[in-house]
Amino acid sequence: MNVKAANAEALRRLLAAEPVLTDCVPAAEALGLEARTVLHAGPPITWEAMCAPLQAAIVGALRYEGWAAGEGAAVALAERGGVRFEPCHHRGAVGPMTGLITRSMPVFVVENRAFGNRASATINEGLGRVLRFGANDESVLARLAWLRDEAGPLLGRALRRAGGLDLRALMAQALQMGDEMHQRNVAASSLLLRALLPSLVREGAGPALARLIEFMVGNDQFFLNLAMAAAKAAADPLLGISGSTVVATMARNGTEFGIRVAGCGARWFTAPVNTPEGLFFPGFGPADANPDIGDSAIVETIGLGAMAMAASPPVARFVGAGGLAEALRVTEEMREITLGEHPHFRIPTQDGRGAPVGVDVRRVVATGITPLINTGIAGRKAGTGQVGAGVVRAPLGCFTAALEALATGHA
Amino acid sequence: MNVKAANAEALRRLLAAEPVLTDCVPAAEALGLEARTVLHAGPPITWEAMCAPLQAAIVGALRYEGWAAGEGAAVALAERGGVRFEPCHHRGAVGPMTGLITRSMPVFVVENRAFGNRASATINEGLGRVLRFGANDESVLARLAWLRDEAGPLLGRALRRAGGLDLRALMAQALQMGDEMHQRNVAASSLLLRALLPSLVREGAGPALARLIEFMVGNDQFFLNLAMAAAKAAADPLLGISGSTVVATMARNGTEFGIRVAGCGARWFTAPVNTPEGLFFPGFGPADANPDIGDSAIVETIGLGAMAMAASPPVARFVGAGGLAEALRVTEEMREITLGEHPHFRIPTQDGRGAPVGVDVRRVVATGITPLINTGIAGRKAGTGQVGAGVVRAPLGCFTAALEALATGHA
Repeated sequence: MNVKAANAEALRRLLAAEPVLTDCVPAAEALGLEARTVLHAGPPITWEAMCAPLQAAIVGALRYEGWAAGEGAAVALAERGGVRFEPCHHRGAVGPMTGLITRSMPVFVVENRAFGNRASATINEGLGRVLRFGANDESVLARLAWLRDEAGPLLGRALRRAGGLDLRALMAQALQMGDEMHQRNVAASSLLLRALLPSLVREGAGPALARLIEFMVGNDQFFLNLAMAAAKAAADPLLGISGSTVVATMARNGTEFGIRVAGCGARWFTAPVNTPEGLFFPGFGPADANPDIGDSAIVETIGLGAMAMAASPPVARFVGAGGLAEALRVTEEMREITLGEHPHFRIPTQDGRGAPVGVDVRRVVATGITPLINTGIAGRKAGTGQVGAGVVRAPLGCFTAALEALATGHA
Repeated sequence: MNVKAANAEALRRLLAAEPVLTDCVPAAEALGLEARTVLHAGPPITWEAMCAPLQAAIVGALRYEGWAAGEGAAVALAERGGVRFEPCHHRGAVGPMTGLITRSMPVFVVENRAFGNRASATINEGLGRVLRFGANDESVLARLAWLRDEAGPLLGRALRRAGGLDLRALMAQALQMGDEMHQRNVAASSLLLRALLPSLVREGAGPALARLIEFMVGNDQFFLNLAMAAAKAAADPLLGISGSTVVATMARNGTEFGIRVAGCGARWFTAPVNTPEGLFFPGFGPADANPDIGDSAIVETIGLGAMAMAASPPVARFVGAGGLAEALRVTEEMREITLGEHPHFRIPTQDGRGAPVGVDVRRVVATGITPLINTGIAGRKAGTGQVGAGVVRAPLGCFTAALEALATGHA
């Protein structure tokens, strides 16, 4: 296929996606995860090259699974090669921030009904001290145990009773309600809870039901992980379209930013990751920010997050002056590096015009404009947790490397 | 007080309101309603002068209460003066469309914590064939019985357990999510359900809980009645501020549009009501539209609905071309007849500028611009129910009459 036809096919697949939330089951079942395998965000990376919060999260996960009794044992296990590290993306999953997934963690299952592929993500842990930001104390492990033993199974029963929940429709509606589904998920989280409730109250009862509902009600970012799983389910069918220059994956591991391109299959193109800028929680500043991390940039890959900034004027305060003009400017800039407009993800402040979708590595390299990513900011010191939220640019290097591979046929 | 000081005080009271949802109890208890008393929307009106949907709703209410066995008996009872008709507004309440309230109906209780006054509204019945649009068949009466016997008491228990729900904060957030809280309440209804859930799942259980939750989940306009009760609770403290030309009430009974003005206390100024224009359901057109009806224009009185159109570009399609430009135009026009900007109700597409609030009868008369109202459209034939949704202008006559009364001191 020539590039034009290949990109048309890539765009067609991206826009035809029908992500449906069907289940919540242990990662061992959904992803076939083995013991002592730890999935992480971003492209492949060794223990030695990992940033402190990612290592800290791994220590937490090894203790949570009972593969190491304490912090020292966990570090020793990792250092001596006793743990297999793999990107979430290699096992059909995505994870926010450190992105850790191990076998006993419950994961949501999202089916792309148009293509039959699936993607998974864990249940969002909420704010504050949480594993995904590298916190690993007892409260973090206790919450993970509750998610595994009570919340996950109840969500799974409710989802199986509900018989599949159309995430594309839900996301389209949330976009009309001020969410760009990366920095802001309050509408989507509310709509999801609403959609799940009739099944939840039939499958759950008493204190267990009340605990899950309070947890979901208290977390405006609950939907983020589902937006990510839906995005991966939508983007994966692009991998392997020979000749296509459309980006199918964007992900960060805290050290490198990696992309995968439709025409280059499973191959990663990486470059050193930038550090996000934005607004910091009281007591923290730019010096506390860890370099960019997480698989969440998969939502920008399908036209959400910073791509759809115009739908979320309040989120635009993380970039420059903020406000509607700034939000419109960001989305308009992203239109310069994308090939299409999303027929379902429509932006109310642009009279229903579709969000920019389908990042073309050729356009990125030609313009020097790299995708903007809306993101949370992890503390660079192990165990700190989240320190703020902001935006970050994808580094140009991975796009030039991909374009070179495509041009020379070494895809 | 001179007019300027009086209006400053009126605006101060309007903007200082703290509406808190505290309870759901029978109207007999909340409003002291007696047997054979029927509250209706808008200014006072006789049975003979009522439009067909209002009469039909009354027939339904008399049967529901058991005060008449059938339609013929109900009409005869009303015709021979056996029913006392009063505006909802005279008894501390507001009702959408026909606005019917009788003693056994459960009503929400909203307290204005800044001034100690209260206001009530019924539970929104949902879409389709419902009493508020003049439908009165068995399905309508069965739903009313369920609201009375099961849904209302459970909502009451949940609200008492929750200990008061801050509606101002909830409405401020919904405005960031595309609701103007008249035509569009999907965000507010979702946020309300979310806020109530922890108490609901502790007070309810089994099929009764499931039925209520399914009912709430299925009704995007559930919050409308609460926006109205909150608005009345906020606006009532204006009544009786001597010299003030600020509008404290706007309401329609299907025959007349009535306003009350801060400086004129309980006195109504009325003029023949206009008929809304807008979009009609399949099979219906402008010829099927009943003239404007309902107390819901109380939300425009406090800066929501059409006043906040800029927050809801999708709602602007009911006026002209629609889209963001149209939505901004409507809100900007309303700024010409209002005295202030709401410090809590902020419009995201105007970089957080406050919604126009405090309609000044002097400005309305001077400019000839009357308030625009977003509204549902009832079928003019009894028993039809809703036929569409659109917008309508308040008639100038009630504003000129009020201004004359204020000017001549016959307030």
